[in-house]
Amino acid sequence: MQIPLSSNLAGEQTTRHCLHRSPPAQQSLPGVPDLRRLAKQQERTAQSQSATAHSRQQLQLCRAATLSFDSKVFHPELVQFPGSEENIYVGGRDKFSHLPKAFEGIKQIGFIGWGSQAPAQAQNLRDSLQAAGSDIKVAVGLRENSSSREEARQCGFKEQDGTLDEIYNVITASDFVILLISDGAQARLYTRMLASMKPGATLGLSHGFLLGVMQNDGASFRDDINVILMAPKGMGPSVRRLYVQGKEVNGAGINSSIAVHQDATGRAADIAVGWAVGVGSPFAFATTLESEFKSDIYGERCILLGGVHGIVEGLFRRYVRQGMSEEEAFKQSVECITGPISKIISRDGIDGVYKAIPEQDKETFTRAYCASFQPCLDICQEIYDDVASGNEIKSVVQAVTRFDQFPMGKIDQTHMWQVGKRVRAERVEKDIPLNPFTAGVYVANMMATIEVLRRAGHPYSEICNESIIEAVDSLNPYMHARGVAFMVDNCSYTARLGSRKWAPRFDYILDQQAYVALDQNLDLNQEYLQQFLSDPVHKALATCAQMRPPIDISVGGDNSTEGVGAGGARTSYSSSAATTS
Amino acid sequence: MQIPLSSNLAGEQTTRHCLHRSPPAQQSLPGVPDLRRLAKQQERTAQSQSATAHSRQQLQLCRAATLSFDSKVFHPELVQFPGSEENIYVGGRDKFSHLPKAFEGIKQIGFIGWGSQAPAQAQNLRDSLQAAGSDIKVAVGLRENSSSREEARQCGFKEQDGTLDEIYNVITASDFVILLISDGAQARLYTRMLASMKPGATLGLSHGFLLGVMQNDGASFRDDINVILMAPKGMGPSVRRLYVQGKEVNGAGINSSIAVHQDATGRAADIAVGWAVGVGSPFAFATTLESEFKSDIYGERCILLGGVHGIVEGLFRRYVRQGMSEEEAFKQSVECITGPISKIISRDGIDGVYKAIPEQDKETFTRAYCASFQPCLDICQEIYDDVASGNEIKSVVQAVTRFDQFPMGKIDQTHMWQVGKRVRAERVEKDIPLNPFTAGVYVANMMATIEVLRRAGHPYSEICNESIIEAVDSLNPYMHARGVAFMVDNCSYTARLGSRKWAPRFDYILDQQAYVALDQNLDLNQEYLQQFLSDPVHKALATCAQMRPPIDISVGGDNSTEGVGAGGARTSYSSSAATTS
Repeated sequence: MQIPLSSNLAGEQTTRHCLHRSPPAQQSLPGVPDLRRLAKQQERTAQSQSATAHSRQQLQLCRAATLSFDSKVFHPELVQFPGSEENIYVGGRDKFSHLPKAFEGIKQIGFIGWGSQAPAQAQNLRDSLQAAGSDIKVAVGLRENSSSREEARQCGFKEQDGTLDEIYNVITASDFVILLISDGAQARLYTRMLASMKPGATLGLSHGFLLGVMQNDGASFRDDINVILMAPKGMGPSVRRLYVQGKEVNGAGINSSIAVHQDATGRAADIAVGWAVGVGSPFAFATTLESEFKSDIYGERCILLGGVHGIVEGLFRRYVRQGMSEEEAFKQSVECITGPISKIISRDGIDGVYKAIPEQDKETFTRAYCASFQPCLDICQEIYDDVASGNEIKSVVQAVTRFDQFPMGKIDQTHMWQVGKRVRAERVEKDIPLNPFTAGVYVANMMATIEVLRRAGHPYSEICNESIIEAVDSLNPYMHARGVAFMVDNCSYTARLGSRKWAPRFDYILDQQAYVALDQNLDLNQEYLQQFLSDPVHKALATCAQMRPPIDISVGGDNSTEGVGAGGARTSYSSSAATTS
Repeated sequence: MQIPLSSNLAGEQTTRHCLHRSPPAQQSLPGVPDLRRLAKQQERTAQSQSATAHSRQQLQLCRAATLSFDSKVFHPELVQFPGSEENIYVGGRDKFSHLPKAFEGIKQIGFIGWGSQAPAQAQNLRDSLQAAGSDIKVAVGLRENSSSREEARQCGFKEQDGTLDEIYNVITASDFVILLISDGAQARLYTRMLASMKPGATLGLSHGFLLGVMQNDGASFRDDINVILMAPKGMGPSVRRLYVQGKEVNGAGINSSIAVHQDATGRAADIAVGWAVGVGSPFAFATTLESEFKSDIYGERCILLGGVHGIVEGLFRRYVRQGMSEEEAFKQSVECITGPISKIISRDGIDGVYKAIPEQDKETFTRAYCASFQPCLDICQEIYDDVASGNEIKSVVQAVTRFDQFPMGKIDQTHMWQVGKRVRAERVEKDIPLNPFTAGVYVANMMATIEVLRRAGHPYSEICNESIIEAVDSLNPYMHARGVAFMVDNCSYTARLGSRKWAPRFDYILDQQAYVALDQNLDLNQEYLQQFLSDPVHKALATCAQMRPPIDISVGGDNSTEGVGAGGARTSYSSSAATTS
């Protein structure tokens, strides 16, 4: 999910309660390697051809094999997931010294755009190259009259030294072009932009959306350029904030997924991993452009944003009809999910929620879970099919052309969200209830989101990030601070359009099928619970948890003015403005 | 909209209160010709080449020109609509004598399938040809093991005389193949079916859906066959019921739209009009396959089904929150729309609703209308774009492949529809209120549905049928008898999938934008009301109203067993069963 929301740039550094801070869990979990130790081993074996060859051989045997690519400069670790192994590249400041070799032949790296990711990535990479003693120039390309120019200047990019220039000047002068304009702008401008690139240059994307657009158009990339992806698993401002903190705390930064889509020069993998390392990713997972855009666009429509929104609208309504006060209904639905449920999943995994529910309430959880899983799976599969077939991307591109006539309205003014504002104002964190019915529905939707990705063959690192970690460690904390509706209203428009489209579908299908089955006391498939408790994703999540950065996102409350400035939330769009930020 | 619901085959013939039964209106409406008189004139001028040439010349000047085609046997009337003229073919039993000439060279007409339309059309056409003294054979093609074979036999189609045979036997033996299997089955089987047709044969469709599928597939029709459309503006059982009644009442029957997509033999137009006349259409409007499938799939997602469902879900919730009892809220929302509002529109046009609202309530209507129009237009335009781009058809085809795993559940068991059942049971028709707020929202959605079709260039005959007439004269009466949810649950799956997809979107956007604007007393664009009152569609509808058949659809209530048998509602689907009915 691409989120242009700003994190609390000025906020306190907070400590995350995560598995890898718990030494017993770290040492006792079977199949979970100590990745810090692995990182050290990697240093020692970096030049060992035989070790690398061995790794490659092993990869042929597992599902993730198609996701492998060879960097001559950096070497992956094979991490065990249930039923598969995956390539993970370990970053950190100690790897910066490899950057000149990874970027050999590159004289200029050009960032196009100044939205959420560009300010963060451009500054991080410039700082990392400087630390490595490299003289590669990092430039930013913006329209002549772009209102973002002043921000870019304040970040040290200047017309005078050629590090701030017109878009196509930067594209034609760069050996590595990193395209970070909005999805809609990419759809409109990619033909000219690709045509302007040097032969042998490298195109960098932080989202596979463009590939989806080009598939719909029947277009393909020029075969004389490299095409790579580095997609940070967090919003731009966090990418910068954690990198800056990482100057003291090695390994602080935002993880990313990386891909080599086209390797024209034989150097694409080096550049891709170097980009991830240079921007500060402590860990980088291998994926493909296609796998990335499908899981990203899908995930934000399911549990990350659309799913959670639809669930709470329906639960709030249901609880009120059952006789709760509106304030109480809000606490038992929204507050419960964005508060205790998210914290439990972040700390103890998804099955931790079941364990945390008192014995006398487990039946309620179970019934809610078993009634909700199949309806949620139904919508999730429909979303996946619509994303995979190109429908969803085509709809987004079409919606952008309608913005002038139909600007996206906010959703946060409805009655329910006004109730939420009052509830948040009087919140006592420790008194937020863990409602077993709410938990059953929410967890069912999360497991449905996971199940569809798994059936489609996505690697576990991607599944865990796009279905769980991003929810409980990134989006839900924002929602907890400012409301679900605020989060929806402040996402990238691809996410925002998707959430508006699919949230009501989750709401309706749960009402029409799950809650009807419960209220009519119909037989439920109890096997869903056993499948949930024994699902291998719990082990996979524990592995991923070891690779989480050690610093939490910090978010201000309802009246905070955060999110203004470089990479801040953009909440209004126009069709013509969907060009370059 | 394709609806496999059965009408009341055994019901009473009821009288419709419609404009063309009102002589003063008929004579005084400017621009509205007396079509009965025109029909007689047409007989007299049928052989007059100069008159036809004159008609053609006029057609070049108007938007409907692209919809013209030449039949050498039947001759259209030019009907004035605001800003355009349209070709209308007048049918009736007195035209049956032209059928042998229209179908010259055709020895066998083969109907493929036995869903809603096939039983009706096959029997009507067989009867009409017999009345005309033609020996053209009408055959039905079904799978060897089709459960519909017995029904077909009961309707007089028999293996012994070759009028009931295996699908591909019928296709290869027919000179005119009318393909009436489900949309999903057409998508799956069209390649082989088209390949099996004789060179020079004619393919008949009653829905342009297949063209949309083929556009998505990048496929096109063989150029050695004719491709035509005849789409009755009503469900199959009505097509049969009204035709049978028409044996005494000339002009009783279901109107249709007709199109010539491909004319390989120079005879396509004759066959298309002959098909409409033979099936009993009193009036047939010219369109194109593309215009038909777009307006049809779009219309059922908007005001016809999805729009009205979403509106009443939201209004019911709103009225309850404002303090009404649930029964009262149901009456003020659902009952009001399917009862008095529909009747007023059917009798007096859309603007008749405004006139019928008491002075003291007009402000409430106006505010509801002005707040709702733009949000409804937003969703309508999104739907139209998704239909026109092929997205919606692709989604339907994908959904069919998921039926085995995700059968479409019913929506009629939720709390609201249980309330509705009680309300219907105790209904006193004359006491159903005309709620001005409900009227404002509903009429705004109807006008939005119309506006998008008009901007896209659809002819007025199509706009009026797909946005207004089908709602107030066909679907809403069904909903009134058995509930909105019943109607949704008993439609063709293309309509049903679309309604489930878009109803919640209308619900959410009205809640998030229209009702928020009203409750926060924001400034509204009052011009929307003036535009509504002076909209040319009111005149167009009055013209169309003159062409409505004089017999109403009759529907049984909640415990009726109607809809069983030939062409009855099919309410369960499986992926593999989406072959031939």
